[in-house]
Amino acid sequence: MQIDIPEVKAEVEAAFAAYEAALVGNDVAVLDTLFLNAPTTIRYGASENLYGYDEIAAFRAARPSKGLQRTLSRTVITTYGRDAAVASTLYYRESAPDTVGRQMQTWIRTGDGWKVAAAHVSTMDQAAPAQ
Amino acid sequence: MQIDIPEVKAEVEAAFAAYEAALVGNDVAVLDTLFLNAPTTIRYGASENLYGYDEIAAFRAARPSKGLQRTLSRTVITTYGRDAAVASTLYYRESAPDTVGRQMQTWIRTGDGWKVAAAHVSTMDQAAPAQ
Repeated sequence: MQIDIPEVKAEVEAAFAAYEAALVGNDVAVLDTLFLNAPTTIRYGASENLYGYDEIAAFRAARPSKGLQRTLSRTVITTYGRDAAVASTLYYRESAPDTVGRQMQTWIRTGDGWKVAAAHVSTMDQAAPAQ
Repeated sequence: MQIDIPEVKAEVEAAFAAYEAALVGNDVAVLDTLFLNAPTTIRYGASENLYGYDEIAAFRAARPSKGLQRTLSRTVITTYGRDAAVASTLYYRESAPDTVGRQMQTWIRTGDGWKVAAAHVSTMDQAAPAQ
């Protein structure tokens, strides 16, 4: 099992960037496309535990679309072999300067491209890093 | 990419059970063995963000060894192909009845068995489920 095969890593980096752009832009259609459409897909969010693609899609559809801008920090994308990867990042929002967010996603290669099969987002009290 | 090949799933279930037993028993040596020894391994914890196996091992060595007992709920282990899996579970501790914990791990098959390559643990305010 080879870690960080360059071309695989580049693929996941591109998928991760597309996800981030869709997230801050609240492009729900793209977000839905980037999650694996399966009952096994799980997303633990800041204040919700969503089991299955349908629960995740329903949550997104109902989500407020404002205040989603954020700054990423210490983003690490690591690939394992050719078909699996983990993307981890901290994030900060201006509206919550004393809070650091943590987002971790497991990405899986499918016949339809890379998809998020599991995600966990949480926040932690902490001062923002010095600029 | 085949989800939940039975014999692969059985392997990860066994690894997950070994991890849980080591966690509540604070068997640091076993916990260390079950994490992937790589600088890319990341663990976001309840109140710490650990980058790299060394930071994770140092955290474990310093961790208080009491009050680790917990009850798992809605545990889902899903395998993707033969070499990657995600284990997600909620957990409850008697010492924190109004809090639900969420633990998500990405497991990767290595030549030395299945290892946790990424983990995210967080807590959320919520009443415990009815018994």
